[in-house]
Amino acid sequence: MTPLKPLIVGLALMGLHATGAAQQNPTPAVPGYAYGHKTLAKAPYTLADLEALKRSLLFSEEDVKALRQSKAILADQTDAILDVWYGFVASTPELVVFFSHAKTGKPDGAYLAAVRQRFALWILDTADANHDQRWLDWQHEIGLRHHRTRKNRTDRAPSVAQVNFRYLPALTIPVTTTLKPFLAKKGATPAEVEKMHAAWVKAVLLQTILWSQPYVRSGQF
Amino acid sequence: MTPLKPLIVGLALMGLHATGAAQQNPTPAVPGYAYGHKTLAKAPYTLADLEALKRSLLFSEEDVKALRQSKAILADQTDAILDVWYGFVASTPELVVFFSHAKTGKPDGAYLAAVRQRFALWILDTADANHDQRWLDWQHEIGLRHHRTRKNRTDRAPSVAQVNFRYLPALTIPVTTTLKPFLAKKGATPAEVEKMHAAWVKAVLLQTILWSQPYVRSGQF
Repeated sequence: MTPLKPLIVGLALMGLHATGAAQQNPTPAVPGYAYGHKTLAKAPYTLADLEALKRSLLFSEEDVKALRQSKAILADQTDAILDVWYGFVASTPELVVFFSHAKTGKPDGAYLAAVRQRFALWILDTADANHDQRWLDWQHEIGLRHHRTRKNRTDRAPSVAQVNFRYLPALTIPVTTTLKPFLAKKGATPAEVEKMHAAWVKAVLLQTILWSQPYVRSGQF
Repeated sequence: MTPLKPLIVGLALMGLHATGAAQQNPTPAVPGYAYGHKTLAKAPYTLADLEALKRSLLFSEEDVKALRQSKAILADQTDAILDVWYGFVASTPELVVFFSHAKTGKPDGAYLAAVRQRFALWILDTADANHDQRWLDWQHEIGLRHHRTRKNRTDRAPSVAQVNFRYLPALTIPVTTTLKPFLAKKGATPAEVEKMHAAWVKAVLLQTILWSQPYVRSGQF
């Protein structure tokens, strides 16, 4: 029983939990996973801002279709994907530092494990591509959790104060590069794999741009 | 004769202009093109920062090779590439606004033309991938020219005050997606084209991250 479970059940009864991975995967009573929660603040960017940004990065309905195609392919592979991603983070000192104990400098196992559970749902939510206001508010919250505003709070982690901005957009590459072989494992044609991969690159870059908002000086986002 | 020509000639005589497109293309007396110029400020990020960032986005020596392979392929196509890129910008209102006259709101032809000349050299410089201190200082300068610190100054353009942050990383996608067909036009194998394209995505994203530095709050980059 996690502290959030009563809240999630309550929201489900109120019909407020209808989007995101939680819909198709009734398991996630994952601590700190708050997509669709009424408690989230409204994002400082609008749906119109989102549409403009999507146009600028050539994000189309074709990409939405490709992402949704990827969901069924990835659904039972999230653990294996996360093994690869965590392996990459663990072997890259400039990344693992963001999961380190602020005093000892050693990776914090409990923090890594807590984030990992949400990361699995994030894969499915990214594939869902339901770009509505609730999704936007959740992106805002995710950004704040990387920024010094709210990092560590969700998991009461004794870690460093922020993920430095530069690594947010950068992570688009390892995440999507290492994802590609998993997209190819369930019989999709090479052309379909290319389309899904390209859609994933756009979808992750789009999100990291939104997550960057708290880092950007006032009026310059 | 442009105002910069004496400076460029002077720097060349002093041996200070040995990197960048200018080396292989003796034409560029392009106004405002200042790669390698002694007048540039030192970047606020170091070569060690750059190496860490490159590791985080899986940028390897293979990517350097692929970029350099692309140079010969792209060298005589820059005009055609820029036709495509400018066509995309012109047809995307949220992008063309950054080239607009601040008062009339209409695209400023002289400004667009001035930037275009440097953009052609930027293609070749990106392919060169000489990631040394001079390159880093030039990235810093390019960032400032997108930011309100120094936008419009180079071309004395009567344009809007800044390029909004969100469009810098976003442009990685249209730039590299529309580049791909040009990479395929000179007989490289499909596998080579894929490698060159992947290297370009990393190289452009890397640069837009560096260009974002002036937008990011103090201590958070």
